Amino acid sequence: MNVIDLNCDMGESFGAYSLGMDARVMKHISSANIACGWHAGDPLVMNKTVKLAVENHVGIGAHPGFPDLLGFGRRNMACTQEEIQQYIIYQIGALNAFCRVHKTRLTHVKPHGALYLEAVENETTARAIARGIMALDPALYFVALAGKKGETMRCMGEEFGLKVVYEAFPDRAYTPEGTLVSRKQPGAVIADPGEVAQRALDMAKGFVTTVDGSTLELSVQTLCVHGDTLGAVNLVKRIREVLKANKIKVMPMGKGA
Amino acid sequence: MNVIDLNCDMGESFGAYSLGMDARVMKHISSANIACGWHAGDPLVMNKTVKLAVENHVGIGAHPGFPDLLGFGRRNMACTQEEIQQYIIYQIGALNAFCRVHKTRLTHVKPHGALYLEAVENETTARAIARGIMALDPALYFVALAGKKGETMRCMGEEFGLKVVYEAFPDRAYTPEGTLVSRKQPGAVIADPGEVAQRALDMAKGFVTTVDGSTLELSVQTLCVHGDTLGAVNLVKRIREVLKANKIKVMPMGKGA
Amino acid sequence: MNVIDLNCDMGESFGAYSLGMDARVMKHISSANIACGWHAGDPLVMNKTVKLAVENHVGIGAHPGFPDLLGFGRRNMACTQEEIQQYIIYQIGALNAFCRVHKTRLTHVKPHGALYLEAVENETTARAIARGIMALDPALYFVALAGKKGETMRCMGEEFGLKVVYEAFPDRAYTPEGTLVSRKQPGAVIADPGEVAQRALDMAKGFVTTVDGSTLELSVQTLCVHGDTLGAVNLVKRIREVLKANKIKVMPMGKGA
Amino acid sequence: MNVIDLNCDMGESFGAYSLGMDARVMKHISSANIACGWHAGDPLVMNKTVKLAVENHVGIGAHPGFPDLLGFGRRNMACTQEEIQQYIIYQIGALNAFCRVHKTRLTHVKPHGALYLEAVENETTARAIARGIMALDPALYFVALAGKKGETMRCMGEEFGLKVVYEAFPDRAYTPEGTLVSRKQPGAVIADPGEVAQRALDMAKGFVTTVDGSTLELSVQTLCVHGDTLGAVNLVKRIREVLKANKIKVMPMGKGA
Repeated sequence: MNVIDLNCDMGESFGAYSLGMDARVMKHISSANIACGWHAGDPLVMNKTVKLAVENHVGIGAHPGFPDLLGFGRRNMACTQEEIQQYIIYQIGALNAFCRVHKTRLTHVKPHGALYLEAVENETTARAIARGIMALDPALYFVALAGKKGETMRCMGEEFGLKVVYEAFPDRAYTPEGTLVSRKQPGAVIADPGEVAQRALDMAKGFVTTVDGSTLELSVQTLCVHGDTLGAVNLVKRIREVLKANKIKVMPMGKGA
Repeated sequence: MNVIDLNCDMGESFGAYSLGMDARVMKHISSANIACGWHAGDPLVMNKTVKLAVENHVGIGAHPGFPDLLGFGRRNMACTQEEIQQYIIYQIGALNAFCRVHKTRLTHVKPHGALYLEAVENETTARAIARGIMALDPALYFVALAGKKGETMRCMGEEFGLKVVYEAFPDRAYTPEGTLVSRKQPGAVIADPGEVAQRALDMAKGFVTTVDGSTLELSVQTLCVHGDTLGAVNLVKRIREVLKANKIKVMPMGKGA
Repeated sequence: MNVIDLNCDMGESFGAYSLGMDARVMKHISSANIACGWHAGDPLVMNKTVKLAVENHVGIGAHPGFPDLLGFGRRNMACTQEEIQQYIIYQIGALNAFCRVHKTRLTHVKPHGALYLEAVENETTARAIARGIMALDPALYFVALAGKKGETMRCMGEEFGLKVVYEAFPDRAYTPEGTLVSRKQPGAVIADPGEVAQRALDMAKGFVTTVDGSTLELSVQTLCVHGDTLGAVNLVKRIREVLKANKIKVMPMGKGA
Repeated sequence: MNVIDLNCDMGESFGAYSLGMDARVMKHISSANIACGWHAGDPLVMNKTVKLAVENHVGIGAHPGFPDLLGFGRRNMACTQEEIQQYIIYQIGALNAFCRVHKTRLTHVKPHGALYLEAVENETTARAIARGIMALDPALYFVALAGKKGETMRCMGEEFGLKVVYEAFPDRAYTPEGTLVSRKQPGAVIADPGEVAQRALDMAKGFVTTVDGSTLELSVQTLCVHGDTLGAVNLVKRIREVLKANKIKVMPMGKGA
């Protein structure tokens, strides 16, 4: 594989509240996951972020979350399958309107925060999301966790006939079994920029070095990066440079082989 | 003219809160203005209401409002033109997703409550709405107040190239100048069902009897009816019967001549 | 024991949305659990409901819930202990302001919906609630589930030095172990008004007939009744009549022996 | 007069969204206007901000606003008098709970943003606010605009028997009539820190230099300062130094002569 996608959460500002360095990081990524006004984002922010993505030739994805602005969508909510399905459809539809205004198309859907984590853990949640996407637009890519831990999420997507895109996290440690080391464990998040960039390259090539030093194959099509601080933005630039130096092209989902 | 549309606000329930007799009134109308989750409605209600409209061959319109669930969108908010435009796009997009899920198309947009009243009074608001609809989908009908009072709203819609649909209120008294009598005045709302049905027929024929007893020409393509009580639903049935008896066809916007 | 309290959830309307028959049921109960504007209720409703309680000599309690109006506070949210504690304080404080306006005092706190159920299941949640009440006003009664199942909730309250009031549900079936039969089981909710009234009397006397027909001692100080339908209101009247006929006084929490 | 109060809006963060340099500016002011969770703020932020104020011996005031988080309370909403009154009571009550938790008392109420501006322009709004404060706690100070423009607001407060505190803005230009120059006019906001500090001193002494260079008497008890940027915080420090150098004591409302 010589193509990889770099995806980043975008459009998380809300009214007078500003979050993220969207204008800076948009230059270096290939896919933007844009908040849809429930856990973050608002119509003005969505419009502005879609415009920015179009200007930078960045693929646009919906980043739906729980109806919990106060908790930034990071707290699990015991919603029914029906609720999650319709919440997903609502949010994708709202973002899609801004894509239409800017003469572009929605590329993908990546659940946000607790909704993503629930989809990883819980078949019902993964099914609700996949069903919602399928009912609305079967052409949308469904971003799901790569590796063993992401099996439920990916299988649900594939069961519903969705095009599933496998995602990995270059700044997160992996167990020898190919699951993410829990954030509660020391060393779960990798801070050294050089190491993260090298891991990104490894992942783009299809493997990851796990916490015990062994090498594990990992099928990956998109890498999750961050844009909330200047340091994070610089890291994305560095990842992109390392990928380029190693002849890996950075392209939006679906544009690669 | 031998065709008229009957439009009614629908889908105004929210979570555990139920409002309106949607299932009953849907049988008798030709267009449903569906709340989009801001001043009323939620994704489950929207999905259910779109489904109900499709089953009853009723045209579907977005009914966007101010971000004021607590005030049911009935209180004016001093939003900027940019805010109103993007709020409109967001809400129409969200409802449109449910139309796509149910393999149908959105027909029209009718602003709700204070947003409608502001569009009548205020050129800036009318322009923001028209601009939002135009940016998103120029094929959508824009419902605007018939008569002299509605001139600003209609002109703004037409200036932006929208297909404007003229709306009248059979249960509201009109001045000899063709404006609605203020709700603060006695006699502003007509309670007698027979009288309302007769006025609906008159309006479908292109005129209205004003408060001084004179007859005024009024170009009307859609009549606003209500479905919040059993009495209201019976009144819609009666209007429909009177129209039928007088060979006026009830059809969704754009389906008539 | 010859005294019992009848408590009922009140003030659950919101803006244009009306819920419950507060004015009718308030005549027959002795304690009102008033929603605080998060999962239900709003400042106008709170003001009106407190006024109604005062007029009917009914004890006033705060009924705080999760920040989830869309889900009516019935969906568990994975909040931290700190979050729950501060949410509780905020909501009690808001309701207390209306008590001050109406020259009365708050009597008790009863968590609503999913927050109540979580407090029953989860020591951390029960502790957060107890800690919040204690920090704000140690004189407030803490309503907690009677019987074996409610042990965690009651112990947490008592550990923090709160005055805990034991609550039972006359319309719910109990297991021989003294826990509520799950709502997913058939027969979990008792529909027959006569039977419910008899069970209320039994509970006021300190026992309950369980699903296997055996008699179980149950220490109870307040009975939860409902006011959402005309049938429910009539049932409260009947319970009150049966209690009176059996010389059980109905009095607000803390007013009895 | 040798005493003045410096008040600043505080506690405007919300969930994951951070706003203002509260910890820095709290050291230099004497009164904090704390957001109450409607236009800004949340229970955790309120708790933390009250604690911070207590630690810094800063007077605590409620800063209630319209129910418009999306607009940060800066957009006028056409609420009724009854609505504004109850909204005020709710918000003050919620903040007061955190004061109780931290063993302190609420000192004052200052309406936020559009609610303040409406109270200046509109007698009905000013009356609703004054009535709400009076109904809840007549001991609370009511912060109202000094000068001719603030007459309506101050009179309403005094009519209801409230202790009104006159507020001026050192960084805003005043007309010879003693009203604020509209923000739409050039020169409405004074940028030079030295000039603002000098004006603060003048105001503390009871006068202001107006846009035409004349000197106008202005009865002032509190000065509004800002803490949203590092520059703003430095300006507050400078104002405080200039006041100290001129033997003007900075003290919370009600603590001075």
